[in-house]
Amino acid sequence: MQLPDRAEITEVGPRDGLQNEARELSVEAKIDLVHRLVATGIRRIEVGSFVHPKWIPQMRGTAEVLAGIRREPGVTYVALVPNARGARDAIAARADEIATVISASESHNRKNLNRSVEETLDETVEIARLAKESGIGWSAYISTAFGCPYEGEVPVENVTSIAERLVALGADQVGLGDTTGMAHPVLVDAIITSFRGRLPDAALRFHFHDTRGAGIANALAALLRGEWRFDASIGGLGGCPYAPGAGGNVATEDLVHTLHEMGVDTGIDLKALIEVARHAEEIAGRELPGKVKVAGRREDLVAAHAGE
Amino acid sequence: MQLPDRAEITEVGPRDGLQNEARELSVEAKIDLVHRLVATGIRRIEVGSFVHPKWIPQMRGTAEVLAGIRREPGVTYVALVPNARGARDAIAARADEIATVISASESHNRKNLNRSVEETLDETVEIARLAKESGIGWSAYISTAFGCPYEGEVPVENVTSIAERLVALGADQVGLGDTTGMAHPVLVDAIITSFRGRLPDAALRFHFHDTRGAGIANALAALLRGEWRFDASIGGLGGCPYAPGAGGNVATEDLVHTLHEMGVDTGIDLKALIEVARHAEEIAGRELPGKVKVAGRREDLVAAHAGE
Repeated sequence: MQLPDRAEITEVGPRDGLQNEARELSVEAKIDLVHRLVATGIRRIEVGSFVHPKWIPQMRGTAEVLAGIRREPGVTYVALVPNARGARDAIAARADEIATVISASESHNRKNLNRSVEETLDETVEIARLAKESGIGWSAYISTAFGCPYEGEVPVENVTSIAERLVALGADQVGLGDTTGMAHPVLVDAIITSFRGRLPDAALRFHFHDTRGAGIANALAALLRGEWRFDASIGGLGGCPYAPGAGGNVATEDLVHTLHEMGVDTGIDLKALIEVARHAEEIAGRELPGKVKVAGRREDLVAAHAGE
Repeated sequence: MQLPDRAEITEVGPRDGLQNEARELSVEAKIDLVHRLVATGIRRIEVGSFVHPKWIPQMRGTAEVLAGIRREPGVTYVALVPNARGARDAIAARADEIATVISASESHNRKNLNRSVEETLDETVEIARLAKESGIGWSAYISTAFGCPYEGEVPVENVTSIAERLVALGADQVGLGDTTGMAHPVLVDAIITSFRGRLPDAALRFHFHDTRGAGIANALAALLRGEWRFDASIGGLGGCPYAPGAGGNVATEDLVHTLHEMGVDTGIDLKALIEVARHAEEIAGRELPGKVKVAGRREDLVAAHAGE
């Protein structure tokens, strides 16, 4: 089995995780969570979003979070922005990178952003300009890349076409979002074939949710094609508002555990990461879906039984 | 991505699942669970084990379960047996197939069966003879095939050597057991290479636990090599006695969901299976780890939003 030597994890727990948790954290608790995550060796982290608190109260105070965190050299602190106004706020707050969102399906884009895909692309031109002007990075998420809850199957062609336009606008990375857990390994493989056929050199990232249990299998499908950039959320923070107990991104510690066992390096201290997952569970105030924080690492199991 | 057209699921919830659940079910409840599972299209099912109730009280009454179930044509009702005495009991109770267990590691075998691997192989000769004499099937599990909690790595060579001996004794199937969730896709792939190098035609089955979140990824690794026989447990029933909340076999409905999405047929009615998973959760009296019973099928998500 041929896999890349290393994978890069973008931790999205403080953003995609917390924005879907019922409990709203203080700015101090968010800063502390970011510090703990970065201390494990994570080098890319979404710290929040600049969406109006009227829509997502959990994301209140992202500017304060960015102002309050101790910046570690070599770490990219990312903020998600829904529009050009958000991009200006993120730049003012000294985000290292902004993340934008556009859906591969028209209905989801309208529901999520209250605009058409074309209108969103227009707005994205302005955001891209702002990012370049400020010399910061820009990663572009394509939501519902693996299926849309309103439209069902999303043609692979649509995903690739939008990706081409985003890359042409200067996106540093394209992130394919499995917004509602509709991805499966065969579809992941098919999308990679289409994407790489037209964008062989673009930086491609995968944002899998574990809504239906296939999150790590989907990551494996991508790794088998030489892809190595993944989003994950500590403890599996997050979820579907309309399906309590389901959803949430792939748990960072579970993905990292499988990667390390397979010999794929991440640069992350897994033992420390598991401690942060347990902390995330405490501050979320509910049992999070990540499994390795319960079972421990494979090697810990062996150590615990040594001499028996 | 090249996968087999179909996969065969052996449902082990009534055995490996229930034997690790705190709540002990009545014979009637077990019979009812078996009926519900078979009604979904499952064609192989472990209904219990003939281990002494002093050791595993949850498995009390397996003879009564086998006597009480309505036998459906084409369904194989399997009973696990720890020794020749158990095999005689299983045969007397009209099991269609017996399953034996041997560990790939000496220490685990001694802990589990209180005998050496060689002594267990001797006992297995007698069990194999009993099965053949009665004209029933025999499937042979190799536990700790992907790692041992006491010894750590288990040489792939040991697994394959034991498998060869079991096949030579007449085992109809060999089941590789990931007893404590130590498997990962690269290891699965390596074991298949070794196994198929020496046993190209043997019927090989995979018994993955989802202890560390890699259960379905491990199944994908096997499918990619053309393997198509998997154990699973409804709802993810079961677990590790020493790690509450962890362990349990791969949830049948989650595995079947991913298989069907990938175009791999199982002959199982997934919608009905999800109902049984919800029932399993009720009778277990705790939240089970299966995800699809919470999130629903991918297609249900789309149907729920139709017209929005």
